[in-house]
Amino acid sequence: MWFQKTIVLKPRSRGFHLITAEITANLPELEQFRQGLAHFFIQHTSASLTINENADADVRRDLEAYLHAQVPECASYYRHTLEGDDDMPAHIKATLVGNSITIPVRQGRLALGTWQGIYLGEHRTHGGARSLVATLHGD
Amino acid sequence: MWFQKTIVLKPRSRGFHLITAEITANLPELEQFRQGLAHFFIQHTSASLTINENADADVRRDLEAYLHAQVPECASYYRHTLEGDDDMPAHIKATLVGNSITIPVRQGRLALGTWQGIYLGEHRTHGGARSLVATLHGD
Amino acid sequence: MWFQKTIVLKPRSRGFHLITAEITANLPELEQFRQGLAHFFIQHTSASLTINENADADVRRDLEAYLHAQVPECASYYRHTLEGDDDMPAHIKATLVGNSITIPVRQGRLALGTWQGIYLGEHRTHGGARSLVATLHGD
Repeated sequence: MWFQKTIVLKPRSRGFHLITAEITANLPELEQFRQGLAHFFIQHTSASLTINENADADVRRDLEAYLHAQVPECASYYRHTLEGDDDMPAHIKATLVGNSITIPVRQGRLALGTWQGIYLGEHRTHGGARSLVATLHGD
Repeated sequence: MWFQKTIVLKPRSRGFHLITAEITANLPELEQFRQGLAHFFIQHTSASLTINENADADVRRDLEAYLHAQVPECASYYRHTLEGDDDMPAHIKATLVGNSITIPVRQGRLALGTWQGIYLGEHRTHGGARSLVATLHGD
Repeated sequence: MWFQKTIVLKPRSRGFHLITAEITANLPELEQFRQGLAHFFIQHTSASLTINENADADVRRDLEAYLHAQVPECASYYRHTLEGDDDMPAHIKATLVGNSITIPVRQGRLALGTWQGIYLGEHRTHGGARSLVATLHGD
C-alpha cells in the first residue's frame, strides 16, 4: 500500500522549526497503515530535515547557533557568492543535516521516541515556502 | 512482505560502537527476504546510527575524537545547559550523524560492502539502553 | 514491485561530482514505477552520497573546500594513519555526509526539485571505481 503527497510548508525564519504537528495534520492517511515507513523529502537545496528534541525550544536555537558558528558566511574560499552571503552556507548545512528522513510507522502513527520531533532546517534568511514530498508505504 | 521489531541495545559508553552482529543476531527474519531494504531507527535524540569501517577500531575512536573536538561542551552560546555539559553536544551530534540508516537486503543478508559495519553513536556520557526500531520490507 | 541493481561508478577525483545522469541512464526501469521510492547506497566507507544544487559547479567545489577545511588531515589525535593522510578524514566525511539517499519516485521519474541533483562525494585522493546499490520499489 502506497500513498504519496506534496505538502507545502509555510515560510519560516532562518533556524530549526518543529513541524511534527504540521506534517501529521496533513497526513490523515497514516491511520490506514498497520506497519510501514514514512519518508519525507525536501525538494530544495538550502533547507533540511532532521529529528531531534521536541521539548525545550533552546535545543533548536542552539543547533542553529552551532551551525552558524561552524559554517561561516563569507569564507575566503567560497566562489559561489552571487546569490547572497547566506546561500553557500545554506547549501553546506543542507548536506550536513540531510534533506530527507525516514520514520517507522506502527499502528497508524509515526513511531517516534517520546522526545523526538521532526525539525525543518531553514537555512536561508528569506527561504519562502518549502515543498516536501511525503511517501507512506506499508500494510 | 513487511517485518518490524524493536531491538533494545545494551548500554554503551560514549563513542562509536560496532553493532552489526548484535543487530543481525536479533533479525533471523532477514533470511526470508530475497531483495528489499532494511531500515534502522534510533528512538532517541542523543544517539545516532551510521555506517563506517568494520575493521580497525581506531576509526571508531578517531571519529569520536573528531566530533568531540568539533562540537564543544560548554560553548558560550548554548542555552540548553540544565541536562549536563554532554547533553546539547549530544543533540548536535545526533543531527550531524543522523538517527536512521537504510541498507539494501539481498539474498537474505544485508548488502553491506566488505569493509562496512553499522555503528551506534552513543553521545551521552551515561546513555543507558537504546531502543532501535528495525523495519524489513521486500520480497 | 521491486528492482535492485548494482551500478559501478567510474573513478573520480577527490571532491563532489554530479551523477544524476549517470544514475538515471543505468535505471531505465524507473519508468515502470507510478509512485514509490528509489534508494541509493554506496558500499564504501570513504565516499558519500548527498543531494545538492545541480547548476553552478562552484557549489560542489565550495562544499569540498568547506569539508577539507573542517576535517583536517594529520590531526594530532588521529591514530588511524597507516592508510594515508586522506584516509581518516575520508571516513569522517563519509559519516558527516552519509552513504545513502532515498528519493521519491513519481510518474516514472525521480521527484527531485528543480535545482536538485545527486552528488557523489569522493573523499579519497585515489578512490577508484565505486559500487552503488540502487533499489527501486513502488507500484
